[in-house]
Parts: sequence; C-alpha cells; structure tokens
Amino acid sequence: MKFKLYFAPGACSFVPHAMLQIAGADFEPVMVKLHKGEQNSPEYHAINPRGQVPVLVVNPESESPVALTQIVAIISYLNDVFPSAQFLPIEPLAKARAMSTLAWMNNTVHPTFTHIFMPQKFTDNATIHGDLGAFNRKLYAAQLAELNAMVEAKNAREALYLLGSKLSPIDLYCLTLTRWGGMAGVDPTTHNAALWGHIQMVAAHPAVAEVVARERLQLNVYQPS
Amino acid sequence: MKFKLYFAPGACSFVPHAMLQIAGADFEPVMVKLHKGEQNSPEYHAINPRGQVPVLVVNPESESPVALTQIVAIISYLNDVFPSAQFLPIEPLAKARAMSTLAWMNNTVHPTFTHIFMPQKFTDNATIHGDLGAFNRKLYAAQLAELNAMVEAKNAREALYLLGSKLSPIDLYCLTLTRWGGMAGVDPTTHNAALWGHIQMVAAHPAVAEVVARERLQLNVYQPS
Repeated sequence: MKFKLYFAPGACSFVPHAMLQIAGADFEPVMVKLHKGEQNSPEYHAINPRGQVPVLVVNPESESPVALTQIVAIISYLNDVFPSAQFLPIEPLAKARAMSTLAWMNNTVHPTFTHIFMPQKFTDNATIHGDLGAFNRKLYAAQLAELNAMVEAKNAREALYLLGSKLSPIDLYCLTLTRWGGMAGVDPTTHNAALWGHIQMVAAHPAVAEVVARERLQLNVYQPS
Repeated sequence: MKFKLYFAPGACSFVPHAMLQIAGADFEPVMVKLHKGEQNSPEYHAINPRGQVPVLVVNPESESPVALTQIVAIISYLNDVFPSAQFLPIEPLAKARAMSTLAWMNNTVHPTFTHIFMPQKFTDNATIHGDLGAFNRKLYAAQLAELNAMVEAKNAREALYLLGSKLSPIDLYCLTLTRWGGMAGVDPTTHNAALWGHIQMVAAHPAVAEVVARERLQLNVYQPS
C-alpha cells in the first residue's frame, strides 16, 4: 500500500507525518507552502476543497486514489492499517480514552490557537482580532498547562510515553501544540517544564527526528516580546 | 455491560443517546439541565471537569466506572462494542472516510454554531459578540448547505442513509446540526429541502423516535425574525 501525505511544516500534519515514518510506510511527503497560499490554489482545492492540511492520499498511483482529510480520522486509519505500530490501545475502552484526548486536542486546543493565529477565520472585522487573540491566548496557556499536568501524571507513573511504553499520536500532537505555544507567547522552558522535557524526548525518537529534520522544525519558537 | 449517559436535550449528546437506543444497550439516560447551569455544579464537574455533555459512564455500578467524554470517541467506542449495530463501515478506508465527516462536523460545524450561541466561550468582550454571531451565521448556513449537498448526493445514489442502508452517527449528527440551524436563523424547510427531508426520516426511525420523544425535541425550531 502506498501513500502520499500533503503536509505543511509545523502544522498538525506533523502527527500523521511522524506516524507514517514510525510505521515504515511507503509514502511520499508533499510540502504545501501555507505562507505562499498554496493551500488556496485550484490545484490544491482539487485535492481538498477545504484547503487544509493534512491530506493522506491512499493508493495515489491507482485508478481510484482516496484523499483522506481530518487528523483524527487519519490517526484512526493509520492505527487500523499499521497494527504492529501499536499507535492506540487495542482494548476498546482504553482506545476510546485515547481518542477522547485526541478529539479534545483537535476540537478545543487546536482551534483555540487558530483564534490567535488566524482570527480572520472567525470574524471579518479586523478591529476585533486583537480581542479574540488576547482572550484565546489565556485559554491556550491554560490548555497547555493541562497537557503539562498529563505529562506530570505520566512521569509519576514512571511511564515513558503518555499511553505507556509506546509512542502514540497523543505524544506527537503534544509536540505540535507545545511548539504553537511559543508563537502564542508561552515560553515552554519556564511554564511547562514537564511538557517541554517530554516533547524534547519525543523529538529525539529516531523516526520522529527524521520528520522534525524534514519539516525543519525548531522546538522552541518562543520570542520574548 | 451497563452504561449511564449524561445528556442535555437537543445537545450533540443526542447522537450517542440515539446510538445506545438503536443498539438496545442497557443504559440509564441522565438529563443535565444546561439552562439551570447544572453542568457547572461541583457534582457534575466531579463527573466531567470540563462541564460538557455528553458523558458516557461505562460500568457505572462497578468499582471502577469510566467516564468517557468527546462525541467522536464515544461514537468510535459504541461502534467497537456494538458491532452488530454496524454504526460505521468495517473496511478501514470506508470507516476512516466516515470518521473524517464526523470529525469535520465536530471540529468545524459544531463550533461554528457555538460562536453564535455561546460567543462568551471565545471572548469576554460582550460588545463583539454580535460581530462573531453575524459572521458565523453565514459560515453555518454554508456548512448546512454542504450537509444538504451530501444528502442530495446520497439521494442520487438512491441510498436510504448517508453511509448506505444502515443508519449511522452521521445521519444522527445531521439531525442535531440541522435543528441548531433553526436557532441560527436558517429555516430548514426553505433552505435545505433534501437535508430537512432526511432528518425527518431519521427522526421517524423507531429507536430514534423514542429518543426524540425523551428529549422532547421539535425538529424545526426556526422562528422568523
């Protein structure tokens, strides 16, 4: 089975990007330059009409390739087709709890950052973008503190990763959301020490490190104002 | 296996509520009165610290009940533990496409409505709530039109439900989101005829009709301004 992954450096597409690398999948990573607006081109809209990354194309060279969108769906799919990678627990309730954390990251933490970074998605009145940003920066800091508490609890259990001994998409999503915190004014080194230590460890995993290098990611992008 | 479902009438908890009824699950529905602020009580926060519905409690009478949150996770779980209900396709790619639609409903359509109905979740500056509402009302109308197009495509395929012959959580989520459209100023009878026809058919499914009656839901809540 072959795949093509449309990703943007530092976007949440990092999660499936790293999963494909970890699974040893036969995939072609295709970079979408968001700062050049490539996601809004007619060519990209033919792949994903919503103009978002990631898109995972399954069997891209076949007569009927399928373009899969939405990170939670792609995670669930990669877990199904790469069972040996053990991305999610097998037991239904344990798997559901992991999916619950992923869903919260995806429908709450992620869009809180979007309110700061792309307020124009929620209002075309530019005069209120600052208000939206300020309020959501506070929410985002609190949500990162929740992630930090999860890592502290995992450290107290002496587990290597958030779901136990195996690196999971939750650890990978933590890396993305913590990086974004830097852009939202949260210095990870001073505010969320456990989380910061964790994502450095995740980034050092050999397959993850390859993807970090391919996306040219700097983990701490915080700049004092 | 026993369950307890915390739901609020008309909220997205309708989706797992109807799924439990369809599956013939042994469950106790517990109503949370959002208009009385019960979701903010210490008792409820002990169940779900985020103060949201739904919460599915698995094995509520056991020594270690598990409270599961997040609709996408609950849907995935109920699909796993009630395979005979065939809530989602078995083939991984078809399942992933269904999950993708559910994820979009959950992280895009649902929160667009939240911006209209509960703008205070995104800003504490009440003077800009009107701006947020107006912009998101337009987005929501466009998103309902996307759902309507999905139903038109399914009608063209002469399928009974959106995933084929079986009622799925996608049909149920459509019902919830279309009802909310009425509150957002979109009259379903004039704007989205295919979608409106579909959710009436979904609501007439015997198990769904029981839940509609239990939640005392009126399907069209649109009121001309």
